[in-house]
Amino acid sequence: MQQKILYGGDYYPEQWLKYPDILAQDVEYMKEAGINTVTLGVFAWSMLEPEEGRYEFGWLRGIMDRLYESGISVILATPSGARPKWLSDRYPEVLRVREDGRRNLFGGRHNHCYTSPVYREKVRAIDMALAREFGSHPAVILWHISNELGGECHCPLCQQAFRDWLKKQYRDIEELNDCWCTTFWSHRYQSFEQIEAPSSLGEKAVHGLNLDWKRFVTAQTADFASEEIRAVREGGGSQPATMNLMYDYSGLDYDELAKQMDTVSWDSYPLWHKQEDIRTAMDNGMQHDFMRSLKKKPFLLMESCPSATNWQGVSKLKKPGMLAAASLQALAHGSDSVLYFQIRQSRGSSEKLHGAVIDHYGGRDTRVFQEVKSLGGSLKKLGEIAGSRTKAEAAVIYDVQNRWALEDSQGPRNKGMHLHEAAMKSYQALKKLGMNVDVISQSQPLEGYRFVAAPILYLFRDGMEEKIRRFVEAGGCFVLTYWSGISDRWDRCFLGGTPYGLTDVFGIRRTETDALYDQEENRMVSDGQLLPKGEYVCRNLCDLLELKGAEPILRYGDDFYAGSPAATVHAFGAGKAVYVGADGEQRLYDELYARLAAEAGVETLTAGAVPEGIEVCSRCSEKAEYVFVQNYRNEPADIRSLDLKGEILYGGSQNELGPYETLIVRRQKSTR
Amino acid sequence: MQQKILYGGDYYPEQWLKYPDILAQDVEYMKEAGINTVTLGVFAWSMLEPEEGRYEFGWLRGIMDRLYESGISVILATPSGARPKWLSDRYPEVLRVREDGRRNLFGGRHNHCYTSPVYREKVRAIDMALAREFGSHPAVILWHISNELGGECHCPLCQQAFRDWLKKQYRDIEELNDCWCTTFWSHRYQSFEQIEAPSSLGEKAVHGLNLDWKRFVTAQTADFASEEIRAVREGGGSQPATMNLMYDYSGLDYDELAKQMDTVSWDSYPLWHKQEDIRTAMDNGMQHDFMRSLKKKPFLLMESCPSATNWQGVSKLKKPGMLAAASLQALAHGSDSVLYFQIRQSRGSSEKLHGAVIDHYGGRDTRVFQEVKSLGGSLKKLGEIAGSRTKAEAAVIYDVQNRWALEDSQGPRNKGMHLHEAAMKSYQALKKLGMNVDVISQSQPLEGYRFVAAPILYLFRDGMEEKIRRFVEAGGCFVLTYWSGISDRWDRCFLGGTPYGLTDVFGIRRTETDALYDQEENRMVSDGQLLPKGEYVCRNLCDLLELKGAEPILRYGDDFYAGSPAATVHAFGAGKAVYVGADGEQRLYDELYARLAAEAGVETLTAGAVPEGIEVCSRCSEKAEYVFVQNYRNEPADIRSLDLKGEILYGGSQNELGPYETLIVRRQKSTR
Amino acid sequence: MQQKILYGGDYYPEQWLKYPDILAQDVEYMKEAGINTVTLGVFAWSMLEPEEGRYEFGWLRGIMDRLYESGISVILATPSGARPKWLSDRYPEVLRVREDGRRNLFGGRHNHCYTSPVYREKVRAIDMALAREFGSHPAVILWHISNELGGECHCPLCQQAFRDWLKKQYRDIEELNDCWCTTFWSHRYQSFEQIEAPSSLGEKAVHGLNLDWKRFVTAQTADFASEEIRAVREGGGSQPATMNLMYDYSGLDYDELAKQMDTVSWDSYPLWHKQEDIRTAMDNGMQHDFMRSLKKKPFLLMESCPSATNWQGVSKLKKPGMLAAASLQALAHGSDSVLYFQIRQSRGSSEKLHGAVIDHYGGRDTRVFQEVKSLGGSLKKLGEIAGSRTKAEAAVIYDVQNRWALEDSQGPRNKGMHLHEAAMKSYQALKKLGMNVDVISQSQPLEGYRFVAAPILYLFRDGMEEKIRRFVEAGGCFVLTYWSGISDRWDRCFLGGTPYGLTDVFGIRRTETDALYDQEENRMVSDGQLLPKGEYVCRNLCDLLELKGAEPILRYGDDFYAGSPAATVHAFGAGKAVYVGADGEQRLYDELYARLAAEAGVETLTAGAVPEGIEVCSRCSEKAEYVFVQNYRNEPADIRSLDLKGEILYGGSQNELGPYETLIVRRQKSTR
Repeated sequence: MQQKILYGGDYYPEQWLKYPDILAQDVEYMKEAGINTVTLGVFAWSMLEPEEGRYEFGWLRGIMDRLYESGISVILATPSGARPKWLSDRYPEVLRVREDGRRNLFGGRHNHCYTSPVYREKVRAIDMALAREFGSHPAVILWHISNELGGECHCPLCQQAFRDWLKKQYRDIEELNDCWCTTFWSHRYQSFEQIEAPSSLGEKAVHGLNLDWKRFVTAQTADFASEEIRAVREGGGSQPATMNLMYDYSGLDYDELAKQMDTVSWDSYPLWHKQEDIRTAMDNGMQHDFMRSLKKKPFLLMESCPSATNWQGVSKLKKPGMLAAASLQALAHGSDSVLYFQIRQSRGSSEKLHGAVIDHYGGRDTRVFQEVKSLGGSLKKLGEIAGSRTKAEAAVIYDVQNRWALEDSQGPRNKGMHLHEAAMKSYQALKKLGMNVDVISQSQPLEGYRFVAAPILYLFRDGMEEKIRRFVEAGGCFVLTYWSGISDRWDRCFLGGTPYGLTDVFGIRRTETDALYDQEENRMVSDGQLLPKGEYVCRNLCDLLELKGAEPILRYGDDFYAGSPAATVHAFGAGKAVYVGADGEQRLYDELYARLAAEAGVETLTAGAVPEGIEVCSRCSEKAEYVFVQNYRNEPADIRSLDLKGEILYGGSQNELGPYETLIVRRQKSTR
Repeated sequence: MQQKILYGGDYYPEQWLKYPDILAQDVEYMKEAGINTVTLGVFAWSMLEPEEGRYEFGWLRGIMDRLYESGISVILATPSGARPKWLSDRYPEVLRVREDGRRNLFGGRHNHCYTSPVYREKVRAIDMALAREFGSHPAVILWHISNELGGECHCPLCQQAFRDWLKKQYRDIEELNDCWCTTFWSHRYQSFEQIEAPSSLGEKAVHGLNLDWKRFVTAQTADFASEEIRAVREGGGSQPATMNLMYDYSGLDYDELAKQMDTVSWDSYPLWHKQEDIRTAMDNGMQHDFMRSLKKKPFLLMESCPSATNWQGVSKLKKPGMLAAASLQALAHGSDSVLYFQIRQSRGSSEKLHGAVIDHYGGRDTRVFQEVKSLGGSLKKLGEIAGSRTKAEAAVIYDVQNRWALEDSQGPRNKGMHLHEAAMKSYQALKKLGMNVDVISQSQPLEGYRFVAAPILYLFRDGMEEKIRRFVEAGGCFVLTYWSGISDRWDRCFLGGTPYGLTDVFGIRRTETDALYDQEENRMVSDGQLLPKGEYVCRNLCDLLELKGAEPILRYGDDFYAGSPAATVHAFGAGKAVYVGADGEQRLYDELYARLAAEAGVETLTAGAVPEGIEVCSRCSEKAEYVFVQNYRNEPADIRSLDLKGEILYGGSQNELGPYETLIVRRQKSTR
Repeated sequence: MQQKILYGGDYYPEQWLKYPDILAQDVEYMKEAGINTVTLGVFAWSMLEPEEGRYEFGWLRGIMDRLYESGISVILATPSGARPKWLSDRYPEVLRVREDGRRNLFGGRHNHCYTSPVYREKVRAIDMALAREFGSHPAVILWHISNELGGECHCPLCQQAFRDWLKKQYRDIEELNDCWCTTFWSHRYQSFEQIEAPSSLGEKAVHGLNLDWKRFVTAQTADFASEEIRAVREGGGSQPATMNLMYDYSGLDYDELAKQMDTVSWDSYPLWHKQEDIRTAMDNGMQHDFMRSLKKKPFLLMESCPSATNWQGVSKLKKPGMLAAASLQALAHGSDSVLYFQIRQSRGSSEKLHGAVIDHYGGRDTRVFQEVKSLGGSLKKLGEIAGSRTKAEAAVIYDVQNRWALEDSQGPRNKGMHLHEAAMKSYQALKKLGMNVDVISQSQPLEGYRFVAAPILYLFRDGMEEKIRRFVEAGGCFVLTYWSGISDRWDRCFLGGTPYGLTDVFGIRRTETDALYDQEENRMVSDGQLLPKGEYVCRNLCDLLELKGAEPILRYGDDFYAGSPAATVHAFGAGKAVYVGADGEQRLYDELYARLAAEAGVETLTAGAVPEGIEVCSRCSEKAEYVFVQNYRNEPADIRSLDLKGEILYGGSQNELGPYETLIVRRQKSTR
């Protein structure tokens, strides 16, 4: 890809073939708005292959040619995200089967079996044909595989594939029985052939089965996608391939999907103006960082809404400036694109009221078009940022397999374990210090970080305990919280003291864990040693800790365990192991991490403190560092405290930011 | 029908055939209570045809004879509302299939397929037999077709009938694809045979499909009912026919059902004493007016509860006076009957605890019986009101097809579009001014009205934009609100400016629409021109408007669109087009309509202002006008401000009304 | 059984056969903790019969021998609570069918048809084999039949069994039609073969059908269990048999199950620390008393949690002392055991996080183990209490068949009839007076009580009206509340005045019943005669009463029935009949019962008033009476007011109780 920020979005000309004037006008509008890239072909199968085996590519070629002539590149999608009616009518096996055994009718999108040989064959055929037709078209810069992959199928083919997958994971059925603890409630299997997927009609509470099913669904989906990529390659499409991922999606382990693609991309639809915008920005920023961390290189913002969405309970308009702020936040966190869903609003069906660059009215004299155009102009000047990397010395572990187990484990708090909220607390505390942060899974290496926080790491897999031990030994600061290190990769509880394998590293043992009702709270009291004298409210879960060498930082203020340790620190090897025993308030993390991260030598991006409502990020190219400062308040902000030096690449002043305004400063790599 | 108010209700003697004393006593009680009409035969199929083809009409004839001898008329029902066990056992096709494809078992009522040839044949046979037996019985004054028609069936027969129906609506499958916008998500059909009804197992988000399915369900139900009427006619039943409709029911388009019947009737079960009674009365009054407007002639109150119902979350007793007030409200709005469900309370099954004129105790010394009797005495003196008409110069458009689309459209506020509430605001504002109000659909003519309000008329069908244009041109005052004129009859968004086809008439264009969270609000500020200086709270939805000739009446007070127009007025032709851009509070409508309706020359029924808690209606015969004034407060009300002249037909004084008291004044037609 | 308190709990060595060290350690730990009894074999089928017909009893014999050698007795379970995979794979008929007709897959527990001949045959075979193998093992002291029997199956076999059962209940189909009132909605049956079980796909509102279905489910379950007991006996197991019942379970009529077993046992899992602990203790105490009253002799606490559970929304730790208090409460109410679920915590699957005597950590140095051990020591000294009886002169009627009807009847308050809460009010009022209380069904005799309260006894069966009449005539005090005596055993409303058959006994007739919204209330006002001058708040339901000889105690304070009687008393025969017309607050019951119970001569267990937060119970052996006083506050309580005399068997002082402390005093039987 060239040294430019991709700007544009999803475009569905197939909905407008009867309106040539509109199609012509669209290209003019795109050019005016500075759009340089559109995604074509998502969901276009029934227009590309209206009858089995009869391909109609002419209309697409016409569009593509015209776009190319206008300087607009194409991200070309494989159409497997929705299938034509003739396909499911002729081959009902392609339709998905629900967890209760009922096969779906035609309808919706993503309603297909990832295992079905027929579906794979038909997808392969259209993908190869597309690649043959357009693989060498100069407009095409990227392949977009399917769309927002997700969901699962429980058909007999999938059930058999699951059994075959399991046979590869276990030595024999006895090993599976041991790992899944099936002796409980007489759920022992005598052979792999007896195994059925989790179902509300049958088994839902063998947690090892549930976890392996989710792993299988990921594996099968990744295999399906890789087969699509293979078909594209065989057809002659040699451009890189991506898949568009989704916000905080827990249906798949994205680590595995990321391995299949060349570039990670994702669809970002924050609920701006629902809560304080800085909270939303932090939440969205964590997802950006998660996506970037999948490959530790720039990603693409594949979809975002230029106006209001239509699928939320309440679809609010973006306030003036929000569109630019949200778009530039993607850049700040490592995206090389700003892409919208969608260029032109569809007339009917379920997304007709979703915002678009060009709406039903069809004029350019709309607020949205003008904001899109204005941003397009700016992005043209920011091309040098494309390809630059993000360097983070701090990381938060936010692991989907841990989440699967934690939310499924039955106890100690079925009303909510709040993993996302806990991860956000650690993430925000670090961002408020003005740092870049990686958001990683357990399977990623810890080398290179100075500070790592792992909130509620209930499930340890991949030798996590050893990884943590080595990290601390080597001088890192590792923060582990309550309810961590309890169970193994099959959600089988570890025997012996917990956090498993780390009681010596952290110098504590968790003896019991109390759960609090939503309206209850306890206090974590500081005597003024590591943290200032005072106290923090905590909720939800409180570990009771036995000291085995650690120093208490905080002690509980209430209940029968008042006075016992609530958070501890322990020097181990060259590093420091910190345990936070309860779900403390944000301020605890803010104050604790400020101290710990500084001690660990994590560098901050700016000189001074980050004012409330402001987010700071940076990217580095070989020559320069780009510091992004964004104001997420709907009022001006004084940012002099940041003491920003360097050349202003975007924005007006190093002293003040207007409402939702962004500042990009370029500085020499050695400035810091 | 004779010049009398029908008084009585549903009677189920078949439940008491083993208790001849009770049957005899019932007639005595009815006579004492002034009851002159009962409905027989609803749900009696298994007693009328205990085995296939073997009819047992003797018991019914006996009852009917005795009733007739006692001066009591009969509304005779066809029994199709519930079928005998033998029918569904022998012909399972008569049982309804759910939207997820599962066929029901026997049970409930209305559990039958409206398409099934067998069901239609069996219904036809019993209907003809009934008509042959009782068509010339002097007691019978009206045929009651089935019962509370509603619901839908997704069986293969219905699916095929749906396809056949669609074939008649569209030139070819391509036209259907265009209207339904099926290119979206590759949902294109290659032939009509591929089409399936909306289903949670399949397609739920092709809005054109959903709308057409609802239209088909209405058509099929109307066809079923018309076949019943035909059978009655062929059997020799020549009396008029009715179907009993339901409160705010959106499962069918009642316009189409109304065409099949001679007289509209409905079942009214307000939740008195749940909120302020005047609110409930307004809500119920709007339904009365909707039912009357279906044919613009008197209707029948077919069912109402003499005491507490049993199906509400909390079934409250009616406070003393409420029974008479609720009954007379029906008359006030155009009913020629007061009929109860039920005369005698059943002993078992799901409605055994529903109130009745005669309860399980079985005595006459009950509060309910005494109130029923007292009202019976009064109604005898009000016979001259029967047949008199309601004249309304103001109307509210409350269109079920608009509602279907609006609630299904996905965006901008899936948490609630509040159409009913919006219609109520317009309706109440007019009723508070002391006017009769029609409540009409889009398919009804606007001629004859001086003032029409159309809240949230999202979907325009039947050339609505032309109808509105002509109405305003000709001198009418038309009020349209936010989120109107957006989509066509297939919920396909109009291209170009909205409200569609009316931007010149209203002198504005809607540029965007903001949605507000439930806890959010904005303000609509008046500078004191048309409305008094001040402001109104608004919620839920705010249209942003571009002025194209209109004068702003109100401007927004908050958010980024503060200061922009929130409501406008535009002179067009001889009339006035008013646009209310946001969901303002009731007071806005009260104050705005007071001004607009007066300017439009809508006459009020009374001289002065209507006090809070009071409802005013009128009916006109050829000779006289009857003005109804009702007090819905549980305390006396001073009504001198109304300056009521004329002869008191019912009630005590033109100066004051007791709690829940009604006054009926007869005045010469030229009084006003 | 010997004169000792059984102490121990469920033990699952089959999960640890690969860990001989752990198995050996378990026995050592048990001995240290004073454990003398464990339950084995619950859910062990797949380990006992890993393939059809191949039994593996060796591992169980080994464990049992070792336990016996260590002085630990065994409660041996039949394994029918969960079946092996091979069984449901080979014989799918054993899997349960849901009420909507879908057959379950393998999974969960209790997922089997109680009717299936195959299931019964396979259960019989393993039960007989177990009894043959272990029936004469000296460790075995009790048979534990299946586990927490419950649920229902709608398979064709069950449907046919239901029809066969119905044929035995009714003379002919006509009688059934009459009892079920099937003429309503044409639901008449022509033959028994037409009947289907209640289903959401079909019939749910024929209340007689619903009630008979529940009776059938109870009968079928009891028959299944009795067949298990027969198999055990035939195999040579002559020890007594029990089934473990569940808290407030309404799926079965426990009266019928109790008839099959020798000893009642139940599983108690109160939600301590969720509300005031004394409320929880009262609630749990009522269940203890219900279980004891089933056979009016000592029962067993079969399961209880030594720590936090895992299945609640929020699983709180027990505060120090709570374990002993909860355990001793069982003894206080008549249990001869304290048994835990579970001895050793399982590693995986759905109950891995449920508390246990030995947790995953596996050490003895845990708070829980130490508390278990401490209590074990104490219980050794309380052996003489085993077998002693509870003598109650007051009873509360809490009848499951009434509950079935009341909650299913459709009206007058579908939002909640609050039967459990109403029963609790009567129960607590009596316990606060320091009495033993029986909690009985309608089918139990009233002889021997001086005071009986029957809250919301909507359904009268078994000649209840005659039973009450005789009880009052003979001198008892009977309190009946609102909405009582309305319907018969088929939920068919009584004709004539209600409470049925008792208007002369109570000297009132209920004329109407008003329902109040959740936020509404009325007042019950006392003029100072029987109750002190003042008023009580009432909610939910208010009966309107006509006096027919009774004296009003209270009159309503609000609404149109203000001033009319709200509660009455009537002398009848040698006794007193009291009617409470509305759902008054707790204080009403407290003050009313204090007066009535004293007048009725019910003796209290202690001299003075019971302080708030304290519970008092007693048991009597032939020689002594044991008075239990428990403090359910987390702070010390002064109990001098109780003036406790006698020898302290457990606890420290007759003057004060520490937080959650228990005192057991032994006194001579003639002390009172």
